[in-house]
Amino acid sequence: MDCKKALAEGDGDVDKAIEYLRKKGLSAAAKKAGRIASEGIVDSYIHSGGKIGVLVEVNSETDFVARNADFKQFVHDVAMHIAATGPTYVSRDEVPADVVAKEKEILSAQIAEEGKPEHVVEKIVEGQVAKWKKEICLLDQLFVKDDKKTIDQVRTELVAKIGENVTIRRYVRWELGEGLEKRKYDIAADVQALLEQ
Amino acid sequence: MDCKKALAEGDGDVDKAIEYLRKKGLSAAAKKAGRIASEGIVDSYIHSGGKIGVLVEVNSETDFVARNADFKQFVHDVAMHIAATGPTYVSRDEVPADVVAKEKEILSAQIAEEGKPEHVVEKIVEGQVAKWKKEICLLDQLFVKDDKKTIDQVRTELVAKIGENVTIRRYVRWELGEGLEKRKYDIAADVQALLEQ
Repeated sequence: MDCKKALAEGDGDVDKAIEYLRKKGLSAAAKKAGRIASEGIVDSYIHSGGKIGVLVEVNSETDFVARNADFKQFVHDVAMHIAATGPTYVSRDEVPADVVAKEKEILSAQIAEEGKPEHVVEKIVEGQVAKWKKEICLLDQLFVKDDKKTIDQVRTELVAKIGENVTIRRYVRWELGEGLEKRKYDIAADVQALLEQ
Repeated sequence: MDCKKALAEGDGDVDKAIEYLRKKGLSAAAKKAGRIASEGIVDSYIHSGGKIGVLVEVNSETDFVARNADFKQFVHDVAMHIAATGPTYVSRDEVPADVVAKEKEILSAQIAEEGKPEHVVEKIVEGQVAKWKKEICLLDQLFVKDDKKTIDQVRTELVAKIGENVTIRRYVRWELGEGLEKRKYDIAADVQALLEQ
């Protein structure tokens, strides 16, 4: 009854309904309503004594497959591969349109700089953008342990072998110290130091 | 010279200068200009065969300390602690103002619901918000391996022992399957199922 009231109070908005349940002290119900079922494993790979760390989640359909040795090996290989290559996205669909536009702009300028005539620049850029996408997307990358196959081909072979779908859902890859906020003048100082070399 | 030109072209904006260097094909210089020095290690902890995974970065001042056994033990303990307790932030300063405001609103409603008189609600809420912040912030949490100390106390002891500052910079903690996008009607169906129990 509390849930029905919660949904009514929140005008059918589930977030509001959960908030209403929490306010009423019915957080157990709120938790259950938000719970999601999914199988697979989260695995990690630490490279060169802690200079690079990777966390990856790979989903399977059943917990049975998540405990399969081939599945586990695949997940660990993927974590190691990510540490080695540092992809930016899992798949090509994830590359945002504005990132593609910016890359096109940079490549166009680069190629124009090389003195190529304007009418061939666009064609070259199209080819380079396609190549660039393959380089930065995990599924399109050549597997570091067997460079005859892409990661997606290795995944497909695993799916065929175990008879269940397998999805590389998400990963993070950290390099020690990267992305630490540096104030603009610190970077300007680095550029200055480069000038003086 | 390219760097000076790059900064001039970008009107002193470093991001634009790096973009300019890349366009000119001088990406090696661009990379160097953006490079940041920092020591420490990235470590991970995987719990219960892959149901929970943690990646953590802890910074030290020198690489010498990063290879110290006490430092390494501390980092691994912190990763394990995060897996166990699931903090939301590293420190109290990181809790956003709007998150605090929302929590206050929920707690106020909860306490009012209990029939407490209005003039005591605010006082109780203040106390509960302070307690809540301590619960969700890693540094304030009681260390799972020694609940006489907070994580920050353990960190301070390490700093005193090794004579160098130590910072828990960032972490991620994933539970298998959490946060998978569920369409609203799926959650509504869950709420419906709860109603019918």
